[in-house]
Amino acid sequence: MLHAIVMAGGSGTRFWPASRVALPKQLLPLAGDQTLLEDTVARLDSLVPPERTMVVTAARLLDAVRMQLPGVPESGLVGEPCKRDTAPCIGLAALLVARHDPDATMVVMPSDHVIRPAEKFRGAIRQAEALVAAAPGRLVTFGIRPTYPAESFGYIQQGAPLPVGPGAAPAHTVARFKEKPPAAVAAEYLAAGTYLWNAGIFVWKAATILAALAERQPECLAHLERIAAAWDGPDRDRVFDEEFAAIKGTSIDYAVLETAPDVAVIEAPFGWDDLGGWSAVARQRPADAAGNTFIGRHLDLGSTGTIVQTGDDHLVVTLGLEDMLVVHTPDATLVASRSREEEVKKVVAELERRGWSEFL
Amino acid sequence: MLHAIVMAGGSGTRFWPASRVALPKQLLPLAGDQTLLEDTVARLDSLVPPERTMVVTAARLLDAVRMQLPGVPESGLVGEPCKRDTAPCIGLAALLVARHDPDATMVVMPSDHVIRPAEKFRGAIRQAEALVAAAPGRLVTFGIRPTYPAESFGYIQQGAPLPVGPGAAPAHTVARFKEKPPAAVAAEYLAAGTYLWNAGIFVWKAATILAALAERQPECLAHLERIAAAWDGPDRDRVFDEEFAAIKGTSIDYAVLETAPDVAVIEAPFGWDDLGGWSAVARQRPADAAGNTFIGRHLDLGSTGTIVQTGDDHLVVTLGLEDMLVVHTPDATLVASRSREEEVKKVVAELERRGWSEFL
Repeated sequence: MLHAIVMAGGSGTRFWPASRVALPKQLLPLAGDQTLLEDTVARLDSLVPPERTMVVTAARLLDAVRMQLPGVPESGLVGEPCKRDTAPCIGLAALLVARHDPDATMVVMPSDHVIRPAEKFRGAIRQAEALVAAAPGRLVTFGIRPTYPAESFGYIQQGAPLPVGPGAAPAHTVARFKEKPPAAVAAEYLAAGTYLWNAGIFVWKAATILAALAERQPECLAHLERIAAAWDGPDRDRVFDEEFAAIKGTSIDYAVLETAPDVAVIEAPFGWDDLGGWSAVARQRPADAAGNTFIGRHLDLGSTGTIVQTGDDHLVVTLGLEDMLVVHTPDATLVASRSREEEVKKVVAELERRGWSEFL
Repeated sequence: MLHAIVMAGGSGTRFWPASRVALPKQLLPLAGDQTLLEDTVARLDSLVPPERTMVVTAARLLDAVRMQLPGVPESGLVGEPCKRDTAPCIGLAALLVARHDPDATMVVMPSDHVIRPAEKFRGAIRQAEALVAAAPGRLVTFGIRPTYPAESFGYIQQGAPLPVGPGAAPAHTVARFKEKPPAAVAAEYLAAGTYLWNAGIFVWKAATILAALAERQPECLAHLERIAAAWDGPDRDRVFDEEFAAIKGTSIDYAVLETAPDVAVIEAPFGWDDLGGWSAVARQRPADAAGNTFIGRHLDLGSTGTIVQTGDDHLVVTLGLEDMLVVHTPDATLVASRSREEEVKKVVAELERRGWSEFL
């Protein structure tokens, strides 16, 4: 049976002041009326039922996640006591799923990407399921056809084509995983036409990923097994706290995928955006004739290329702005040149340095 | 005896969203800890006592004015039922003052200018008093030595020099009043060295200005006399409402000064700024090394020439801005290019047009 693992532990400082420690990117309605997390779970509708959906988040976000996902049962909510990257997250989810369904197939996905339309996503996951069914030891990833020489994504080099049915997305063996490249290398990848962005979406048997972790990350897996063994007992919280903290955080890409023998990549047939910042958010909304995107109560006189995010209860007026970003929240407002959007992270770092924790 | 008339009826839309219909420029602390109105009255300290100070404002602002000026007695607060420019305001004040002190000398001044130091202002007013004492029919104005070819001020052309005591400011007869000039003409005035900006500060006998109004604006004065006659009776409000509304609004400059026979101008020995907009406000505060002026809770990364106004309870973060203006208030925020500061008025007009009166 297919189980869904939604990874919802990210912090998303690029969206400050809309995103906060207690309200990160995936919990915000950045691409529509629903939050990214709500969208992610809704996308699974008719593919995986809520009772086979597991959301792994940070312990401090559990209440907020629970509120946004009333359909997901309590047993499907996992709150990590600390941040340890994707390998421990996925390993624990695989152990917990395999307890009740040893033959489970898992689709693992981030909760903070925009993927549309949902129907094409579901079709692609079914295609991945079939690839796994045909070769149960196989790890299936999804790659996004690059549209520009991005330096902020990992790349997947396509190897030999795999047979696919009529109308299905192209699938290949993976020749190699490539870390985030410098601009010149990214341009080469783009020109070559055989590199895809690594979308961080995976389909595999729980047993397969656990076997891979046993071989490559035995210490990590040992910690995770102790957590899983205590999961239904009175010591769950204490064991989870202690054992998870003792794990060395590492990504599933580095821990397993880069060295695994049978990895396939499906070229995503769906629209995808990882919403790396406010410009990406703006791309998800209609712009006016001057290239402005306004969300919330707003009045503009003569601005161009400007993004405004406010609420319905606070008016933002823009006058003659060029390529600016304005984000208003009840206690803090950011005004930035869009050319320096990447540096919003530095703002958060500076707030931390100053100890202005009420704004984090 | 010297009486002070403080004109506090202005609306100051250039400071939106800090200034509102119910809280115009003169009621805001734009140049320090005190409001401009508080500063204006404090400047009279040791020159005119509160019981000889009259503040003429809009009726809707009376409560706010009363709150800011607890020292001014109720009899010194006049709330105009509608806006009729400076001539009716000054004429009514002259009538009310002359009832109890027929030989009164009046200093008339706006409430929304920055004038420093106060001691030099008081010295200049005493000098004007002496000029009036020497020639009781004289109207004395103050002119500001221009520092750039301003198009937004009226000008006063200096005529023949008047004798002044040692250490006193230069005084001249007025050759001519000039309306706000176009740029080329303003440049000529600046180059000539004999033109001063009209500061809108006047010293004269109440009897003199009333005689001038009787000659030049008899209808206006008739309305005002009916108001003054009813002032201490039960019909004051009704008569004030009816008669004041019936007056054709006009400025004292146009109504009297431009055609009066004996007008003198003293070159102001004090620092003066009419705070025409946020850039003027910024000039009153220390700027940082990059030319930024930040008021309120604030964090900046790499901005230049930028003005931020917020409260202590709302953080504004600026990132890489160049010559921008950010004004945050609880219900509305303005972000503007400083090069378009003049157009803040258009914002207010547009809010009116849309009927968004909650922001006016």
